[in-house]
Amino acid sequence: MAVYTDVSAASLSDYLAAYDIGTLVSYHGIAEGVENSNFLVQTTTASFILTLYEKRVDPADLPFFIGLMQHLAANGISCPQPVAMRDGTMLGTLAGRPCAIVTFLPGVSVRKPTAANCGQLGRALAQLHLAGAGFEITRRNALSVSGWRPLFEAAGPRTDTVHPGLAAIITEELAAHEAHWPAALPAGVIHADLFPDNAFFLDDTLSGIIDFYFACNDLFAYDVAVCLNAWCFEADGAFNATKGRALLAGYQAVRPMEAAEVEALPQLARGAALRFLLTRLVDWLNVPEGALVRPKDPLEYLRKLRFHRAVASARDYGLAA
Amino acid sequence: MAVYTDVSAASLSDYLAAYDIGTLVSYHGIAEGVENSNFLVQTTTASFILTLYEKRVDPADLPFFIGLMQHLAANGISCPQPVAMRDGTMLGTLAGRPCAIVTFLPGVSVRKPTAANCGQLGRALAQLHLAGAGFEITRRNALSVSGWRPLFEAAGPRTDTVHPGLAAIITEELAAHEAHWPAALPAGVIHADLFPDNAFFLDDTLSGIIDFYFACNDLFAYDVAVCLNAWCFEADGAFNATKGRALLAGYQAVRPMEAAEVEALPQLARGAALRFLLTRLVDWLNVPEGALVRPKDPLEYLRKLRFHRAVASARDYGLAA
Repeated sequence: MAVYTDVSAASLSDYLAAYDIGTLVSYHGIAEGVENSNFLVQTTTASFILTLYEKRVDPADLPFFIGLMQHLAANGISCPQPVAMRDGTMLGTLAGRPCAIVTFLPGVSVRKPTAANCGQLGRALAQLHLAGAGFEITRRNALSVSGWRPLFEAAGPRTDTVHPGLAAIITEELAAHEAHWPAALPAGVIHADLFPDNAFFLDDTLSGIIDFYFACNDLFAYDVAVCLNAWCFEADGAFNATKGRALLAGYQAVRPMEAAEVEALPQLARGAALRFLLTRLVDWLNVPEGALVRPKDPLEYLRKLRFHRAVASARDYGLAA
Repeated sequence: MAVYTDVSAASLSDYLAAYDIGTLVSYHGIAEGVENSNFLVQTTTASFILTLYEKRVDPADLPFFIGLMQHLAANGISCPQPVAMRDGTMLGTLAGRPCAIVTFLPGVSVRKPTAANCGQLGRALAQLHLAGAGFEITRRNALSVSGWRPLFEAAGPRTDTVHPGLAAIITEELAAHEAHWPAALPAGVIHADLFPDNAFFLDDTLSGIIDFYFACNDLFAYDVAVCLNAWCFEADGAFNATKGRALLAGYQAVRPMEAAEVEALPQLARGAALRFLLTRLVDWLNVPEGALVRPKDPLEYLRKLRFHRAVASARDYGLAA
């Protein structure tokens, strides 16, 4: 969490002149967003978030991200809404980086989600899946099954230095998923990174979803599996079936899952755990000297993966029979 | 610039209950303040800054800092105003740290101050010096002359690894200041760290002064000298006498300096340059592994010190004869 790029008041004021949102009153770099630099900008009219896209974001993906937020907001999802310049464009350049201004979303993320939070998150996720329909741009999920082996290769022989036996488990998982990953399930635009820090609540009511920079086209149930991993485990590593039940019930109340999705859920949850295990592993092994960002613990996801490997059916996640 | 301490929404909401400022709407860790963790907090009533005091701040100094901001605000200075809890106290505890909430000040700091900015800064500095009168708590300047030799000793033999010959120059400067530091000049509460990032402007008008965590009792003219160093040099190291003239004229328009202060200015400017050279040197030599904060270049202040060593009189700073 850091601000990677410095922006001067003079250059920001100049940049804002292309918009119709008032003049600069204050701005603060905010310590959020692992991938980009974010600023909370207050103008004479309102608060906004300015994002400078750093090198980990492919500029070719920006029309997808910006267009998606616009599409979702137009379809009733509470998410940051890109603000257009007077000439209608929504992507600009500041301090040598591509950038965009989006509306400021009130709300705070919860550190320890309650079952009620999980239920609301499930509903919001299903609403998001439905609202994505009709969005014209597509983006493949670079971090789905075919992207996992390259990550493992990037980690290389140092994998077992993080945890003895880790390489063997990953090898086994990769083989299983590459052979049997479900393909014919309902798919569309997914968030793909809907962790608790990307959902805002106000007075315990979900007020918005942020950070669409991993969004892509993939299986809806895989997105559900990502959320089960991110929302329903306790700090001690235990899966909380009450939260799982709430999340899944919330989801199904808006978009009932097909039988094949329910059946695939344990494997999708294993795959989702593997995906975060692998990206965290690579980050963990590649912390640059003097890094501004502390990597997240990959072993949290090894523990989750082990839970999913022992799961017999979607019932173990709390799904009603 | 970093957020050192994590604060959960739940604990912040609980903490806000002691105040009469509404309920939590959003909060963002802001990448500002080298010493403390700062959050921009929006409640149902307004925006505030929450500061968690980290280990470099002595808790015994907090009543001085908080009381000073309150005193200055009550005496017409635009600065963050500490917000009292319902029971009247202004210092609390959050995430195990002492903390305070202050009002949010609009405005942006300027990267490259103009002569007009310097003139306004000079006026504001003099107003601040006058407004400090009557403030009952005192705090000695731990970073004045008697504090410099211990800093040099902390840097130790590695000093010359930063720049060949640096130790000799510092030795010479220390001897000169320890022998001849002016004592009988007008004194009171000074800011002591009024760099451009601690002054806010709105539409080129100075809108406020922030960050009083180096404030102390010391010579007013020393504070002027700190500002000459911080505001009136160009990026290429050259002193800009137009800016110096503007700063000093602005200051004198509000609080005319005595002849002895004017005479002492070159030495005070040398001393101020030495003070920042030394603290930056120590920070530079002691960057912890994986540091979240990049140290500032000490040699910037060596260049400034060299300029001051060549100065004949206060006229070289642009002061009218």
